[in-house]
Amino acid sequence: MFKRKSIWLTAIALLLACLPAMSQTKKTFTLNDLLSGGDTFWNLRPKTLFTAWWGDCLVELDQDEVRLLTDERGRKTEPKALFHLSDVNKALGEGVASDAVVRSLYYARFPEAGKPHVLLTTARETLLFDWQAGKMLRRIARKAGEARDLSTASYSEAYVRNWNLYVATADGREHQVTTDGSRELVYGRSVHRDEFGISKGTYWSPDGSKLAFYRMDQSMVTDFPLVDIAHRVAQPAPEKYPMAGMTSHKVTVGVYDVEAGTTVYLQAGDPTDRYFTNIAWAPDGRTIYMIELPRTQDKAELVAYDAATGERRAVLYTETHPKYVHPMHPITFLPWDDEKFIYQSERDGYNHLYLFDVKGRELKQLTSGSFVVTDLVGFNEKTRSVIIRSTEASPLRYNYYAVSLKNGRRTLLDGGTGVHNATLSASGAYLCDRWSSPDVVLKTDLVSTAKATQLNLVTSADPWEGYAVPEVTCGSIKAADDSTDLYYRLVKPVDFDPTKKYPTVVYVYGGPGLRNVDESRHYMMRGWEAYMAQKGYVIFVLDNRGSTDRGLAFENCTFRHLGDEEMKDQMRGVNFLRTLPYVDMDRLGVHGWSFGGFMTVNLMCTHPDVFKVGVAGGPVIDWKFYEVMYGERYMDTPQENPDGYASSSLLGKAKNLKGRLQIIVGYNDPVCVMQHSLSFLRACEDTGTQPDYFVYPGQEHNMMGRDMIHLHERITRYFEDYLK
Amino acid sequence: MFKRKSIWLTAIALLLACLPAMSQTKKTFTLNDLLSGGDTFWNLRPKTLFTAWWGDCLVELDQDEVRLLTDERGRKTEPKALFHLSDVNKALGEGVASDAVVRSLYYARFPEAGKPHVLLTTARETLLFDWQAGKMLRRIARKAGEARDLSTASYSEAYVRNWNLYVATADGREHQVTTDGSRELVYGRSVHRDEFGISKGTYWSPDGSKLAFYRMDQSMVTDFPLVDIAHRVAQPAPEKYPMAGMTSHKVTVGVYDVEAGTTVYLQAGDPTDRYFTNIAWAPDGRTIYMIELPRTQDKAELVAYDAATGERRAVLYTETHPKYVHPMHPITFLPWDDEKFIYQSERDGYNHLYLFDVKGRELKQLTSGSFVVTDLVGFNEKTRSVIIRSTEASPLRYNYYAVSLKNGRRTLLDGGTGVHNATLSASGAYLCDRWSSPDVVLKTDLVSTAKATQLNLVTSADPWEGYAVPEVTCGSIKAADDSTDLYYRLVKPVDFDPTKKYPTVVYVYGGPGLRNVDESRHYMMRGWEAYMAQKGYVIFVLDNRGSTDRGLAFENCTFRHLGDEEMKDQMRGVNFLRTLPYVDMDRLGVHGWSFGGFMTVNLMCTHPDVFKVGVAGGPVIDWKFYEVMYGERYMDTPQENPDGYASSSLLGKAKNLKGRLQIIVGYNDPVCVMQHSLSFLRACEDTGTQPDYFVYPGQEHNMMGRDMIHLHERITRYFEDYLK
Repeated sequence: MFKRKSIWLTAIALLLACLPAMSQTKKTFTLNDLLSGGDTFWNLRPKTLFTAWWGDCLVELDQDEVRLLTDERGRKTEPKALFHLSDVNKALGEGVASDAVVRSLYYARFPEAGKPHVLLTTARETLLFDWQAGKMLRRIARKAGEARDLSTASYSEAYVRNWNLYVATADGREHQVTTDGSRELVYGRSVHRDEFGISKGTYWSPDGSKLAFYRMDQSMVTDFPLVDIAHRVAQPAPEKYPMAGMTSHKVTVGVYDVEAGTTVYLQAGDPTDRYFTNIAWAPDGRTIYMIELPRTQDKAELVAYDAATGERRAVLYTETHPKYVHPMHPITFLPWDDEKFIYQSERDGYNHLYLFDVKGRELKQLTSGSFVVTDLVGFNEKTRSVIIRSTEASPLRYNYYAVSLKNGRRTLLDGGTGVHNATLSASGAYLCDRWSSPDVVLKTDLVSTAKATQLNLVTSADPWEGYAVPEVTCGSIKAADDSTDLYYRLVKPVDFDPTKKYPTVVYVYGGPGLRNVDESRHYMMRGWEAYMAQKGYVIFVLDNRGSTDRGLAFENCTFRHLGDEEMKDQMRGVNFLRTLPYVDMDRLGVHGWSFGGFMTVNLMCTHPDVFKVGVAGGPVIDWKFYEVMYGERYMDTPQENPDGYASSSLLGKAKNLKGRLQIIVGYNDPVCVMQHSLSFLRACEDTGTQPDYFVYPGQEHNMMGRDMIHLHERITRYFEDYLK
Repeated sequence: MFKRKSIWLTAIALLLACLPAMSQTKKTFTLNDLLSGGDTFWNLRPKTLFTAWWGDCLVELDQDEVRLLTDERGRKTEPKALFHLSDVNKALGEGVASDAVVRSLYYARFPEAGKPHVLLTTARETLLFDWQAGKMLRRIARKAGEARDLSTASYSEAYVRNWNLYVATADGREHQVTTDGSRELVYGRSVHRDEFGISKGTYWSPDGSKLAFYRMDQSMVTDFPLVDIAHRVAQPAPEKYPMAGMTSHKVTVGVYDVEAGTTVYLQAGDPTDRYFTNIAWAPDGRTIYMIELPRTQDKAELVAYDAATGERRAVLYTETHPKYVHPMHPITFLPWDDEKFIYQSERDGYNHLYLFDVKGRELKQLTSGSFVVTDLVGFNEKTRSVIIRSTEASPLRYNYYAVSLKNGRRTLLDGGTGVHNATLSASGAYLCDRWSSPDVVLKTDLVSTAKATQLNLVTSADPWEGYAVPEVTCGSIKAADDSTDLYYRLVKPVDFDPTKKYPTVVYVYGGPGLRNVDESRHYMMRGWEAYMAQKGYVIFVLDNRGSTDRGLAFENCTFRHLGDEEMKDQMRGVNFLRTLPYVDMDRLGVHGWSFGGFMTVNLMCTHPDVFKVGVAGGPVIDWKFYEVMYGERYMDTPQENPDGYASSSLLGKAKNLKGRLQIIVGYNDPVCVMQHSLSFLRACEDTGTQPDYFVYPGQEHNMMGRDMIHLHERITRYFEDYLK
């Protein structure tokens, strides 16, 4: 008995002794767990479904099976396989080469509602498979090429090979559309350095009979001498890079008529110093619309062209702004009325929708208010409503709304919390909505756009359960204008002790087009922040004025002097940190990439007594080294704005550097070319300051793959070496 | 009284209190004091005289005065001005443009013994001034050009302009010698990447009537894509760089007859994969001699050509070696016998002199022994002796000897201690000998080559008096072959305390052609070592096998596997450091540049548990990225020696890196191109190791000027950050 009791006591004592230890034995993250280049990253992401729309039915895509999830009336179905991978490959017949076999169904598309047809591709063919008949409806050989663009109306495919544009038609014929393509004369590719929302160079007409395509003459543009070291002897890899104020490329738009085999060019006039953006087809395929800007970017014109002749028909709408206009969305026609379309504009201070007719008459403003419409997702044809995503519920949230075309009433569809990302079904009746919020890991809901109801399909478990996850909070402070609300995220060290003082790193981007704080899971915390919290750092992230989705004035207050207002706001953030007793102001660091690299170097050199350690990735150092499209939008040209360029340049501030600053770049960065960082090093060398430097050969503007891990080990080590 | 006594006592107490402090108040060096790029460097160098020979008279050159120091019989004269700067400029006449005025007399030359003629140049003219008559004898306009080469016999000048070779004659006429010069077809410049002792591309005949010149066709050589960032948009600055095993350039030698205006090319046969080196003229100007090697560098042929016709006359001498031969010295004719010349060869294991006649008959070996003749300075015609510099007195010393042509007897001229650097007078009767030794700061002596007497002209005071100079010692250890003596320099920390343990840095070069330890002042200590000693570091420098001036076997034991023997010897050095109680083996660093950079990275990655911190400048990483001439001499080609290239490559060792290693390069290095360091970074990134990196844009293989200071601040900081 005594013995037994003693064992019990011992056990209890052991248990008690273990309790604090047990609370400590939460699993810790490695960088491999937290960054997308890591081996274990995907294991620690919330599990979700791969889905696609088949008409209004939602299907789940799997490696070797496609299953129906919801029916055309938005009702959950019993899990039911529509077809299997083996069905597809059986239909391909015997003796098919290994690279001609379909390997997974993850990329299946369903081009026609109601028909049991699935579109698949292999390295060799485009396939249209009828899973009910169990046979191939189409097998179209894929020609060698890049920048592929398939019309699911005609099954014609456009692609680029050796700088020339080709079209392969469903009958297997190859049309060579252009013959004089070269590195200097580029066809069928994205132009204007991917600004104005441009991400591709070919645009099929709705019926797939005509192809609008970009032609970019960049023979007059200066080469930036990039170098590829992945050969025994490094090779020149020059990049056509028009720097601010210098000669830019000339873009025109051709229209290829597949059946006639002829090309006409849109008669837009002299393309010198002009931007041709946001190409859209009329539903009948007879008219092409573009939004055109002069190089000054202070005017946008919506112009209609005859697709058959290239004739310039009319300027339907003109918008000007003394700073800049920034069209990012092609016009969108109403599915039930080919005479009306929606134009998106920031003219009242926020991106909103405006209804026009094809004569250019403005019929009405569809949305308004101090919030931003971030997406026009589509339409519910039955309810005559347009489905949008906006920040109306809160500047930190992204929610879906149906906007009635009849009365303008907006109906919140998704509950109004968190950050939502959805795809719309064929008729617009349903959204497949994936969303999270600070308290919701990830949910996938089927949302009825008519009834504004949500049917939960999956609630993902927290894959970070059992890990030492830091406390993440969000709040607001006033900007340096003393009126604007700025939102921050604050990540506290794991095992936070309020009586201690912690080294603190400000993470910053701060430029237009991006934000870092919203009400998604963990307020948008990046994996590296959780890692640093484990190591005992406070991380502070503040979206300053100049960043995105807060409206035009919030963004364009930085016009012609990038960096100034942004830094003032970040210093308000620093003042806020001063009020936190656990922030050690003697151990304050800063880190950012790209525009955030510019901010990091700027903060280190402008406030050398505040920031002790900085890591700047791919930084802009002087806007005169940046490209024409983005650079001149925010800064005008160096000729027009010499003072702004001079005062925003970090070359003159290199001499102020006191703390430890490491600059890291991709050796093959074609966006923020090495001229920036190397010129800064030269300026430091000339003035006797000592930055640190690192390069990733073969990497471009952002480090990809395994190098992400290497990079963040490096960044972490730098703070550990000098801030801790 | 009491008061007064008290004051005295206080004073004494204060004095006593100050004593240790006073011994501490020696001045400390800054990097500016110690490195040639520093503002104060020259103030802290031993003061000496600028001198020149006027026949056998030694003259002192000053800014505005030339003074006679010793007469033609080697006797000190009363300081006496020969002429003044104002005399020269007066003779130029009134109204001379400011860039046509002579600004200093530091570069005066005295072409003819006995005649009061001085040769001077301005940006515009070559001037020959008669200081007794006070008038200009010649005023020859200088044409625009580079790579100038003036014959003081004919006053014709050769130069290169826009890749073509020109000759300007004394009468002011300009001859264009070549017309098809380009970056791919180079005339009148150094060839074979400055190997084989080549440093220029033009060679005047003794009477200045004919000009031998190099022509190098490098159109078939791969460009290495260097980039010049000193423009708003960086510019390509490609460098023709033949990498080991790849296609090399083709060199031929032309002879331009100035009077005839004609060029003949030496009929040397197909120049593919051949080296034409060590051009020498016969005294009568009728014959040209070259030492020719095949690309394999295992054979040297001394070949005579008819200078008028280019006809190949004879192979006078052939030398082979299974590893390599390395001719660095043109043949030298005896001044008193145009039929005899001296050939220098390492064939008996050390560089020695051999007397030949012009028929190619070897008459005798003039010097022999286990020491190296480093220089053939000239002849004393009267005593029929050749004046040489050699390491005969000690492997650590360089002394001058007269070698009798009659009986071969060698007479030590300079006392036999220290390291001597001298210039020989016109007849060879005197040396102006500047020398130092561990105990001698700097002396300038007039040495009689006939009598072997030394007349001290200047004994320089120690400019480091009053500074905290570290203790520097020298010693020897056995090489890894257990028999060869290796010499080291050991620099102890300032205020050395033998009971303490100090961080220790091994400084290393280790490659052929250089050494780091000899018996000059402070055993050749570099300025940075004194700086580090001030900061409390031990510095250790060991000349391993493979380095220079220890004979052929000492050097060529590294053949085909550079790095291996060198590292074994350096590890013997590390074993020696282990025996020193004050060396902290847990804080051992390594630093080197170029070949020393290769050694540094190699040691860091091969012995990752021995070396904690390394700084490698401009390192070779893989010999396949290095050039043909140097690389293949020591490594053969990658095709011939794949194992040697593979095992000596540091790319495969990148994964072993554990300590802190910073690699520093000149961004415009045309010698050790960035392919080396960038490939190493890529290898580290791919294998998850973390080197540090830094670049100096605009700098080449070695950092020059103010960047030397910046660089050594950087190197120092790295050891301070991680080794201390």
